[in-house]
Amino acid sequence: MLKNEVTKRLGIQYPVIQAPMAGGVTTSDLVAEVSNAGGLGMIGAGYMTPVQMREQIREIRNLTSSPFGINLFVPAEFTVTHNEIESSKHALQPIRDQLNIGGEDNVEVPSFNNILESFHEQINVIMEDKVPICSFTFGIPSKDVIKSLKKQGIILAGTATTVKEAMEIEKSGLDIVIVQGSEAGGHRGNFITDHMESLIGLMALIPQVVDHVRIPVIAAGGIMDGRGLMASICLGAKGVQMGTAFLSCVESGAKEIHKEEIRHAREDQIVLTRSFSGKWARGIQNKYISEMKAKEASLPGFPVQNTLTKGIRKASALQQNRNYMSLWSGQSPRLATNLTVKSLMKKVIKEAEDLNS
Amino acid sequence: MLKNEVTKRLGIQYPVIQAPMAGGVTTSDLVAEVSNAGGLGMIGAGYMTPVQMREQIREIRNLTSSPFGINLFVPAEFTVTHNEIESSKHALQPIRDQLNIGGEDNVEVPSFNNILESFHEQINVIMEDKVPICSFTFGIPSKDVIKSLKKQGIILAGTATTVKEAMEIEKSGLDIVIVQGSEAGGHRGNFITDHMESLIGLMALIPQVVDHVRIPVIAAGGIMDGRGLMASICLGAKGVQMGTAFLSCVESGAKEIHKEEIRHAREDQIVLTRSFSGKWARGIQNKYISEMKAKEASLPGFPVQNTLTKGIRKASALQQNRNYMSLWSGQSPRLATNLTVKSLMKKVIKEAEDLNS
Repeated sequence: MLKNEVTKRLGIQYPVIQAPMAGGVTTSDLVAEVSNAGGLGMIGAGYMTPVQMREQIREIRNLTSSPFGINLFVPAEFTVTHNEIESSKHALQPIRDQLNIGGEDNVEVPSFNNILESFHEQINVIMEDKVPICSFTFGIPSKDVIKSLKKQGIILAGTATTVKEAMEIEKSGLDIVIVQGSEAGGHRGNFITDHMESLIGLMALIPQVVDHVRIPVIAAGGIMDGRGLMASICLGAKGVQMGTAFLSCVESGAKEIHKEEIRHAREDQIVLTRSFSGKWARGIQNKYISEMKAKEASLPGFPVQNTLTKGIRKASALQQNRNYMSLWSGQSPRLATNLTVKSLMKKVIKEAEDLNS
Repeated sequence: MLKNEVTKRLGIQYPVIQAPMAGGVTTSDLVAEVSNAGGLGMIGAGYMTPVQMREQIREIRNLTSSPFGINLFVPAEFTVTHNEIESSKHALQPIRDQLNIGGEDNVEVPSFNNILESFHEQINVIMEDKVPICSFTFGIPSKDVIKSLKKQGIILAGTATTVKEAMEIEKSGLDIVIVQGSEAGGHRGNFITDHMESLIGLMALIPQVVDHVRIPVIAAGGIMDGRGLMASICLGAKGVQMGTAFLSCVESGAKEIHKEEIRHAREDQIVLTRSFSGKWARGIQNKYISEMKAKEASLPGFPVQNTLTKGIRKASALQQNRNYMSLWSGQSPRLATNLTVKSLMKKVIKEAEDLNS
């Protein structure tokens, strides 16, 4: 049951994809070790420059000869007013004071055109460096982008939170759809469906998507062991994408305090917030989330709010202060380990095979 | 994989429990047919009088010699002010006008003492009539109640939405824990954990609960076919409880318009509301839910708001007006059928066995 059209197509041994977590989590070691262990390592390149991407692709190629993939954020147009920015800065000031990062954050708010330009540069790197697999979050790229990538033989995956989004991904010509259940940690990938309506649990989401698309479905959200892998396959998925499970591994670039927090968290402490980035995301409840709760609805959208909180997130991580960090986690923190990637992969596959025998 | 300690203990053939949906859904035909097909039929007795309970237990015993169960709501203390009631009545008046049920609803708001008294009467019926299985929602009954029921050999189950709630259920001495995922339709069963924090998807909830209790776990929420049954078993559950799947069946007492609405709904149209009963519940989005949205936070709690909306729910159902009915549904409406119970059970078991072979 663990060999199927997806493992064949991706050229991997086991249908386990490491979720492309952005922000430094997906070190070259992490990505390469997942691929070396028979899964698919993925670079979370959403926030990367072309130079950073090239360097990491090169590093990974030195560490593994197995396939790996890369993930990009599809830019979406946005509007933001001067007032929204000022009011967010005002709300963030007491937190900056707490962290002693004083003064104003003289951040430059990105424009949509700049973001779109960076996205095209990222696409160019992927084509030039011939990364074999590319997945997208927050939307579907343009027809031209899809056409160019497919021409190079790059296998493409999209991220969906509802049947409708999955059907649009199939229609656009992408090869695989990753369905993100409400259990998932980090940013919500909904791009057509509204936030609240997009919170579908995997037990409901997988079979309904499977019944409505012909392309293979990969399940993501709260899956951290062989039980989740086999359950997803029973529901009709061809594999799983695991984030928090790999984030807690030895090789992940997440801060130690972040890994520790996950290992000590309970499932009912993992909440949804849009205060960090302007986009809804799931992480461990902390002081920042509680303090910003009342202002949450009026904050600027992604990526503006993300830019405005960059200094806070960086300083709190450096100060090892859990209160103001974005401690992303899915809903299964009690299943987290502190294993190496190799041991985790062995454990997951053994659990799955035991269930299957 | 379908025979286990739960099927043995309950004396049933397949680990499939029909969710005890209150409000007339669980007709004697529905309950008896589920038990006749090898599952466990359950009476949703939450709102029933002792007379109604006795009558239905007798009816079911005429229709099946297999075990069946019954479910009760555990009363919780509540406070309500005159102002809250008046303000809710005021908000409901335009809807009453729409439905031509004019004037004030001269409803008597129940007191906690009355509710507790009714609950003890319900418990007495279950003991006198020796119903073999009894499950609870909205909390854990008192030690005395548990002791009395267990003395009669009645098998007891509790409903949990988090690991903490499941552990409390085990500690209280109940025999089985039903874990309700965020996917579930109808009322949320959380009784310790707050609403938002209790919304855990089954993919995350089942394995985390299984790892923390020794009593068997039954999974509920969005499960409607053999794929969900086998997935739940992979995750460590010993069986499933299905609500919407049986609600859509021929024998269910749900209004035809309710069944039709489910069959035409999409997973992203199923929302959470507390406007119908004062307790959060999941159902199909309609005019009532949208219109009450802004007032939702300030409405009286359960069961007061439930009493205040009774006339509206009844009139809209009689008038076949979907706009103001409580159209409870889990997150998998696309998996609904219009089969008889017998055919649905056959389908579910065949799908599960095919996956298992």
